[in-house]
Amino acid sequence: MDAEALRLASLTQGAGPSSGGVRVRLDLGYDGAAFSGWARQAEGRTVQGELEQALATLFRGRGAAPRIVVAGRTDAGVHARGQVAHLDLDPAQWRHLGRMGHGAAAETTLVRKLNGLAGAAGDVRVHRATPAPDGFDARFSAVWRRYEYRVADPGAAQDPLARAFTVWHPRPLDAVAMDAAARLLAGPGLADWAAYCRPRAGSTTIRDLQSFAWTREADGVLVARLQADAFCHSMVRALVGACVAVGEGVLGTADPLALREAGGRTSAFKVMPAKGLVLTEVGYPPPEELAARARQTRGLRSLDPDE
Amino acid sequence: MDAEALRLASLTQGAGPSSGGVRVRLDLGYDGAAFSGWARQAEGRTVQGELEQALATLFRGRGAAPRIVVAGRTDAGVHARGQVAHLDLDPAQWRHLGRMGHGAAAETTLVRKLNGLAGAAGDVRVHRATPAPDGFDARFSAVWRRYEYRVADPGAAQDPLARAFTVWHPRPLDAVAMDAAARLLAGPGLADWAAYCRPRAGSTTIRDLQSFAWTREADGVLVARLQADAFCHSMVRALVGACVAVGEGVLGTADPLALREAGGRTSAFKVMPAKGLVLTEVGYPPPEELAARARQTRGLRSLDPDE
Repeated sequence: MDAEALRLASLTQGAGPSSGGVRVRLDLGYDGAAFSGWARQAEGRTVQGELEQALATLFRGRGAAPRIVVAGRTDAGVHARGQVAHLDLDPAQWRHLGRMGHGAAAETTLVRKLNGLAGAAGDVRVHRATPAPDGFDARFSAVWRRYEYRVADPGAAQDPLARAFTVWHPRPLDAVAMDAAARLLAGPGLADWAAYCRPRAGSTTIRDLQSFAWTREADGVLVARLQADAFCHSMVRALVGACVAVGEGVLGTADPLALREAGGRTSAFKVMPAKGLVLTEVGYPPPEELAARARQTRGLRSLDPDE
Repeated sequence: MDAEALRLASLTQGAGPSSGGVRVRLDLGYDGAAFSGWARQAEGRTVQGELEQALATLFRGRGAAPRIVVAGRTDAGVHARGQVAHLDLDPAQWRHLGRMGHGAAAETTLVRKLNGLAGAAGDVRVHRATPAPDGFDARFSAVWRRYEYRVADPGAAQDPLARAFTVWHPRPLDAVAMDAAARLLAGPGLADWAAYCRPRAGSTTIRDLQSFAWTREADGVLVARLQADAFCHSMVRALVGACVAVGEGVLGTADPLALREAGGRTSAFKVMPAKGLVLTEVGYPPPEELAARARQTRGLRSLDPDE
């Protein structure tokens, strides 16, 4: 399926489950190291591809294989702890899960089967499946995404057990300056992040960066925590790169904000590696606001992949 | 070198560095997954083997290659965050480090070179090298070792990013009962842990388990924290296994203590997998007590490998 067909499939799914069917919310996590990102591709192992293959196996001969819509389409190598997705099951598929479970709830059986079929390597794990409230759309109902980025400089514990999700930086970083730069960049309200986004045809770079801060944890590791309505492509890693340049003294604390205001792409900082980045949580409004939020988001944002 | 020769080498090193030489303390961590344990073997990749090979390369043609003495000889697959070791450098070797550093301290150069030569895979990392105080012996001066063991049951986040150092347990565990059983087992004073030790010729199973507790962390993961003067072989994983049996309701909270008092090995619980176990910290007395502690430990304990 090409990119355009994927977009159309995503739009169609936004319409809700078929009559009598069930929209299921999935909460899941993955180690991005061995994945070519979330989004299914013709070549390469992807999280969406593994899960949709598992669904196709599970429902073979029982209607169309379900497609998965995700809150944050992470890039190759990016991890997730609190990723959210949805899929629509038709009534026959839902009943099939019920029968397979020998008394267990259909959603419990779905989790067990997905982890059995897609989770053998241990690097993707479905935590929960729950029938979604009316109007829920994993992508378009979301009101915010949270990410963390971890950097261990020489002043931090460079722990081999955390090396899969921590960037080891060879030079000392000034956490106080980095935090000051981050706070200058954060909200309130919408701004144009073109300087921090890899451009994509037809996509907007207007986003609301609601919070951005750096802390040096007890073990010395520098952790960035960011929240936005959504992030455009490579935005988190570019923002982290700008702050690392501040932490090294290459940029001043006000420079990352000045670069955003200047617009256009810049070589003043590096986009940081994917391995330090984890999608930690996705926020949704109360059930009665889900449908309105989805309609509003579809109107405001184009269908570009979010990171 | 066979086991007996290794023991003799270890004893010899206990005597301290050669005249004018320097005993260096190393603080280090590793991901045990790809290692056949700490202790050098004829076959198989080991942490000691990798580091001693790096030292041999570093000091080629400059006297005998240094040997490393460690505080906790971890088994295959066991990890470390706060491992401590020592090695003795003769005066020519120490001067060589000074010259190589182009102005950097000899100990800084040693860390950089060891991480360059042995740390390319990222799964072993030397954090610090420091000239050791008089009387320091990484193994025999230590007054306690601390370990952590992580278990994620269905009530916990089974986080793919933590799967290298967390055991995913398929059935729910009662953390309160496990903690009660652990506290009954802990101190005060020496006891015979034969029921929890894999027997080794010539080694004692008398140990002082100073603390042992279980907590369910914010993410639901069950973490055991243990401290003893030293642990005999497989002791931590057997203790954890007994508590897991309590957590499943297979044993009562007082049973693990009763099993210890009964002596002898038992099949009432399983020894847990290595991957959940991390050596987190090693404690030493104040500098003026280091030598006395080392003499006392040598007298009390045989030269059996400690986990």
